[in-house]
Amino acid sequence: MRNLKITMAYDGSNFLGWQQQKIGRTVEGEILKALQFMHNQPLGLHAAGRTDTGVHASGQVINFVSNLDGIPLQRYARAFNSFLPLDIRAKYVEEKPESFHARYHARERSYKYYILSSELHQPHYRFYCHRVVHKPSLTALNRLARAFVGTHDFSTFSSPSEQNPNPERTVYNASFAIEGPFLVFHVVAQSFLWRMVRSMVGSLLTFEQESISIEELKAKINAKDRTQAGPTAPATGLYLHQVRYKDEHLVY
Amino acid sequence: MRNLKITMAYDGSNFLGWQQQKIGRTVEGEILKALQFMHNQPLGLHAAGRTDTGVHASGQVINFVSNLDGIPLQRYARAFNSFLPLDIRAKYVEEKPESFHARYHARERSYKYYILSSELHQPHYRFYCHRVVHKPSLTALNRLARAFVGTHDFSTFSSPSEQNPNPERTVYNASFAIEGPFLVFHVVAQSFLWRMVRSMVGSLLTFEQESISIEELKAKINAKDRTQAGPTAPATGLYLHQVRYKDEHLVY
Repeated sequence: MRNLKITMAYDGSNFLGWQQQKIGRTVEGEILKALQFMHNQPLGLHAAGRTDTGVHASGQVINFVSNLDGIPLQRYARAFNSFLPLDIRAKYVEEKPESFHARYHARERSYKYYILSSELHQPHYRFYCHRVVHKPSLTALNRLARAFVGTHDFSTFSSPSEQNPNPERTVYNASFAIEGPFLVFHVVAQSFLWRMVRSMVGSLLTFEQESISIEELKAKINAKDRTQAGPTAPATGLYLHQVRYKDEHLVY
Repeated sequence: MRNLKITMAYDGSNFLGWQQQKIGRTVEGEILKALQFMHNQPLGLHAAGRTDTGVHASGQVINFVSNLDGIPLQRYARAFNSFLPLDIRAKYVEEKPESFHARYHARERSYKYYILSSELHQPHYRFYCHRVVHKPSLTALNRLARAFVGTHDFSTFSSPSEQNPNPERTVYNASFAIEGPFLVFHVVAQSFLWRMVRSMVGSLLTFEQESISIEELKAKINAKDRTQAGPTAPATGLYLHQVRYKDEHLVY
């Protein structure tokens, strides 16, 4: 018996989000199906984060206890992938102590949000980024984004959720950079509220156009008032990028 | 009545290629349907190139005669797009002389082929590039690619086609470059034979691994023997990139 930590990537376009449900194709549902086929019995799993419909992952982390001790670790990903649909892939497999829990032990989660600033439609990218027609200033966006760093009540920039009664979160880093044709928002926190990243990005894009000052943005955060936020950016641009654990080196 | 030249982009993933056929979703078929809805009558069109199943376009060019003179040119793309499915988009619309023909007057066509060199699966890219697990040398690939430049009988590097009895083509440019995470093959010619680009790319990737010399590659070209080629690279990586006409400035 091994407690396996697996780093997963998936294309969220054709899933009704992460969480298994009775009806509809979900990432967790497909992974559980693959695990059951592979192990000849139903298995449970833990995941670092739940992603919404249309949200992607390049570094989701799951763990589960596998009794297939005959498969060498370096071949496990390939074996697992042979049971998974092509829009979900296992990237790395590691063995962890029995106590390891992908959700409870996650120390840092980071998301990336891909923005394409283009007047032209790019059909290849339509499920993989958020297209805006204006050209935002990278400097202005980065100046605004810094207001999110630190410990704040993020009620303004999240959707209310029964599962998360405490709206306080600590953001370690929030910044924009250029990656190929994309403007990319990268945000790191221990954990996030529901729709928090999409609300942050959508608001920043709007506030930059409206030339809102850092002081005004800070006032919006302090207002703890959902109506003070800008529009929530669409799911297509969002990727669960990386999850880090206690024993790992932290890099921003 | 205006003869309109429209530059189109499409995601080839969900099409059985360009050409309209009785059964199956094709790019031309969808465009003709949109034109018919928009103009209230069936229209004909010409296209610079025909793309195979799964092949994409970022700069396909079509032309047709439109009687919707009431739509200003700068609004035509938006109007046309409202009739098209989301995986086909009109990018630029220009009015051309009555004699303009998107296929016959094309002076140069260029294709790009996207290669992802990665041991890891990237589910988001699976329809948009060709993944290889080894790391080819950019220098070696570029050295080999130069052998294709010039006028040659490309029988070795194409599939036989009844429509193209003459296997001679002139390649103006063939080179590899890095674009973000991708290794990109860019090739320019007046026109191409069937599967010529995919055969060139697939062969170059194999020849680079086998350390085949330029002289050996030249001998393979001169052999005019299909069995001397390497494997044909998959459609997913291929994009019809640009088409240039007589009156346009040529840039490689």
